[in-house]
Order: sequence, then C-alpha cells, then structure tokens
Amino acid sequence: MKNRICALFGIEKPIIQAGMIWCSGWELASAVSQAGGLGIIGAGSMYPDILRSHIKKCKKALGDLPFAVNVPMLYPQIEDLMEIIVEEKVPIVFTSAGNPKTWTAHLKDKGIKVVHVVSSLKFALKAEAAGVDAVVAEGFEAGGHNGRDETTSLVLWPMVANALQIPMIAAGGIASGQQIMAAFSLGAEAVQIGSRFVASAESSAHLNFKEAVVAAKEGDTILTLKELAPVRLIKNPFYAKLQEAYADGAQAEELKLVLGRARAKKGMFEGDLEEGELEIGQVSGMIDNIKPAALIFDELWKEFQEVKSKAIDW
Amino acid sequence: MKNRICALFGIEKPIIQAGMIWCSGWELASAVSQAGGLGIIGAGSMYPDILRSHIKKCKKALGDLPFAVNVPMLYPQIEDLMEIIVEEKVPIVFTSAGNPKTWTAHLKDKGIKVVHVVSSLKFALKAEAAGVDAVVAEGFEAGGHNGRDETTSLVLWPMVANALQIPMIAAGGIASGQQIMAAFSLGAEAVQIGSRFVASAESSAHLNFKEAVVAAKEGDTILTLKELAPVRLIKNPFYAKLQEAYADGAQAEELKLVLGRARAKKGMFEGDLEEGELEIGQVSGMIDNIKPAALIFDELWKEFQEVKSKAIDW
Repeated sequence: MKNRICALFGIEKPIIQAGMIWCSGWELASAVSQAGGLGIIGAGSMYPDILRSHIKKCKKALGDLPFAVNVPMLYPQIEDLMEIIVEEKVPIVFTSAGNPKTWTAHLKDKGIKVVHVVSSLKFALKAEAAGVDAVVAEGFEAGGHNGRDETTSLVLWPMVANALQIPMIAAGGIASGQQIMAAFSLGAEAVQIGSRFVASAESSAHLNFKEAVVAAKEGDTILTLKELAPVRLIKNPFYAKLQEAYADGAQAEELKLVLGRARAKKGMFEGDLEEGELEIGQVSGMIDNIKPAALIFDELWKEFQEVKSKAIDW
Repeated sequence: MKNRICALFGIEKPIIQAGMIWCSGWELASAVSQAGGLGIIGAGSMYPDILRSHIKKCKKALGDLPFAVNVPMLYPQIEDLMEIIVEEKVPIVFTSAGNPKTWTAHLKDKGIKVVHVVSSLKFALKAEAAGVDAVVAEGFEAGGHNGRDETTSLVLWPMVANALQIPMIAAGGIASGQQIMAAFSLGAEAVQIGSRFVASAESSAHLNFKEAVVAAKEGDTILTLKELAPVRLIKNPFYAKLQEAYADGAQAEELKLVLGRARAKKGMFEGDLEEGELEIGQVSGMIDNIKPAALIFDELWKEFQEVKSKAIDW
C-alpha cells in the first residue's frame, strides 16, 4: 500500500469519519468501516459503560475490520475510558483537546495506534514529538470545538503536512470529492469528515438536528464563545441569547451562566433546536440530504476519482 | 484556449496578482503581466492623477499585454477614476466593496471586461446577474477587507464555482503551487494572489512591511474591526490598542476614533510597524522571502505543475 494512512490502519480507502459527541455511536462507526474507511466512536458524550457497550457492538458488527475511539482528554473520568479501551482491545485511538504526552506512550505500549487532533502547526509538532502515529489537522471552518489561531484548512494543512514526518489527516470543511482532492493537493494522506456524516441515516444525532444541518446555508454557522472554548455552531435562538449577553458586555463567568449545562445534548441528541447548542461545520451549507453512510462514502470516493481524472486538463 | 479566464483576458497562465492598496502600483502589475499572468493596479490608495500616471507607465511597459485596475467602489471620487479608466482604455476592471450593478454596464459598453470580487455565494449570484464576466471569490483567510459570513476559501469556492455559469477566480490563502492545485480542485479557473506578491521586489509596500510579512508566523493575523468593516491584519501594537478598546467595551464610534485616519498608509507604505495598520492574509505564515515578482510567478507555476503530476498516485 502506498498510502501511509491506509497502511497504518489497515483500511482500503483514506476516508475517516470524525468522532463527534452525540452523533457518532457504533452504528455510524461500523457503517463507515464496513464501507472501506475508518469509523470512529465519539466517546466524549458517553459514560464509560455506554462506551464499552458501543465498542462491543462495533466489534461484533465489524469482526476483523478496524475502527477507532475518539477521546477528548478533558473527559472527567478519562482513566476509566482508557482502561475500557485497552481491555476491549480497541485498535486505534484519536485523542483531542489536551496534551498528547499524557496518554500516547501508555496506549502505544498496549499496541494501540494513536492519532492526535490539532489546530495549529505548533501543536502538530508537539504531537509528533510525543510519538503519535499521525495527526489530524483541523481548520477554522470545522464544527464544534476549534483552535484559537483561526487558521483555515487551506493554510493549516500545507504548513502541517510539509513540516511533519508522520502523515497528516485533513479535517475541517470536507463534504465533497472536490474538497477531498483539495486536501490531497495540500499534502493530506487521508481526510476526516464530520458534518457530512452527521446527516447520515446511522448518525445518532436527533432527526431535528440532521434536518437543521440540511437546512443550513452559507453564513448560518459561527465560531463563538471564544472567551471559554471556541466552538462553531448554528446561529439559533440559543445563539441569539449569547449575542444579547455579548451586547451587554458579558465576560467569561456570565457567558458560562448563559451556556449552562448539557446544551449540546439538548440540541444534537434531544433535537431542541431553540435551546440546544447545534455544533456543525461551515460546510453544512453544502449538505442537502440525509443518506445512508455507505452511500455517502461511495459518492465521496467516486467524486474524488472524477475530479482527479480531470486534473490533467488544468 | 481551454481555460476561460486565459481566453477572457488574453493571458498565458491563469495567475492574477491582486490589486491591493499601497502595494500594487505599475511596477508590480507590469512585472506580473510580463511573466504571463494578469497584473492589477490597486486604485484604492491612489488619487485620480496618480492612477493615471500608473496606468500610463503600465501601458508603456506592457505594450499590447493586458493589465487591470482594481476599483473599490467606496472610493469617494469614483466617477473621476472611472473616467480615467475609460479614457486610458484600460482593458480590464476588477470592482470590489460595492454593488456590481452600479458600474458594470457602463464599463462593458466601453468594451472593458469587468470582474467583481465577492465573499459569499449570495453576492456572487448578484454579480453574475449584474453582467460581470467573472467573479473573484475570496475566503476568510484573505488579508485586508473581508466578508461578514467568515466563509473560508475551502467552503466558499466550490459553492460559488458550482452555482455560477461564469468562471470563478479563487482568492484568499494562496501562496504556493499546492494551494493553486487546491483552488482548481474546488472549481476555480484561475487564482488571484495578494500576500505573496506583497513580499516581492516590485511591490510598492515599504520594506519594513515586506519584512513583517516574511516574519509573520501562524496565528499572527486576525480578522478584527467587525463592527466597522472586517479587516485582516497583523497583530501589532496598533492592534493591541484596539484590543484595549474592546476590553473597555468600545462600540463602533469609539473604535473609529482608535482607528483614526491613514493607518493603512502609515503601516504599509510608510513602514510604521507600531502605529500602522498592516493588512495581510493568513498565508503570510508561509511566506519566507522577498523575491522578484517574475521569479515568484514562475515558481508558483512550476510547483502547480509538479503537484498536478503527482495527483495520479493519490
């Protein structure tokens, strides 16, 4: 295999489905791995026993096919999660939102492949130094939590890919074969796709949220809450409340009060489009339908091949 | 010619140098047109008689080769500029920052090709309806004045290219052959490059500013002054003053006072890196040297061809 990411994970095609809170359980992860890519269970919104159950179901559905678990390192019971991951022999872990030094060596000692998600060249270099097998470089256009430098994928990807020895997986703003082609043009050896798979049949997102993703047009998302942790979300009535707080000069403590607890669950899992937090990427403006993940996967791959075949004429 | 932009402008290679205030006079524009692309005189920072002199020098240097003038439509004496452009038989005009309906028909009646710069699909469709020959679609990562939707190039370009009948020129975040390849992957038929040409020998930017562009690393620019007109600039002591004003809860009127007058000239043309406004794109983090424009042009084209030749293996 020429592609280092396909070789590393033992997958056919270098398309990875992002681990996302409330959206990516075992159904979505196993559908993407079965299609020939890498599916990821998003552990950030799961209690430890729920994660174990999703891993078991994924293993049962997939047999020998690989899958991964995404672990945001801010997770309060992270030791429990990591113990389950090792016990259940999860082959690949994607870590995010924390220091890659903390868990990389431990996981690699157990034979687990480790990938760390970054939003800047600086953190990419730190991840490489910490011994990870690959990095995901995610640009400003991505949904959910995001970097402080606001570097877009077009600028971030070549900076990271050209500076690192280990392979880079491109994320943020990818929902079409054209965008996959752009990612490879910029040095990526694989792509990680989130928003497009939120609007899939197998995603565990509430149907209301999937439909809100389909309805979103350009300019309907924004990166906000920069005083706490920057997050990209759909501008809905909850966001309007945040805007009122900003207009009143709210600082971090007051913003925390407005945010409250469990807003993301309320929006994305329970389908409350008014009061919930609806995390999604800018590329939602290009997503027009809800389809089975395998169909999305095959269309993305076909589009990528079509664009590639035209490149000779540019 | 297969490329519609090359055919439209009568140029050899689909690389356009952006018209930029204080940086792109006749020396830069003629160097880029001589290299086989399209050079643009940025009229936004020129009094009418200065513009006329730059046009005359460009025509003298170029003979029959094409060039363009960029006109921000907020320019106070815009009628005078447009009269000079028609009198001097400028073959191509790029309009920006205003309604494309206002001048397109008038210019086209005089046989002038018209291109309008947009930052959203919505404005791209309006420009097409106004009868322009092509649009420049410019993403969030671009330097200088920028759109309110904050849509990045990776998301904006395919939305615009796929929706319009007229050709799209991609701008914002392009300073390498990899990024040109990405632009073409996303439907562009040409690229417009700003920041990279600021750091050229022929750019009229002050050497201090050129060196600041070379010194800039990732995260060193930011889109700010969103309450007035969003602008991307280098975080320097002037920006720190803006930050202080924001921290004190400053609204639009107070921000205008902090901004004052002629900050852009002070920074980019007079080289005051402390008090001046230093408008540049995120991609400045990838620019490491100051070179003759023709050399930059040839390297970009060579890199693009090299990346293209590798695509078959992706």
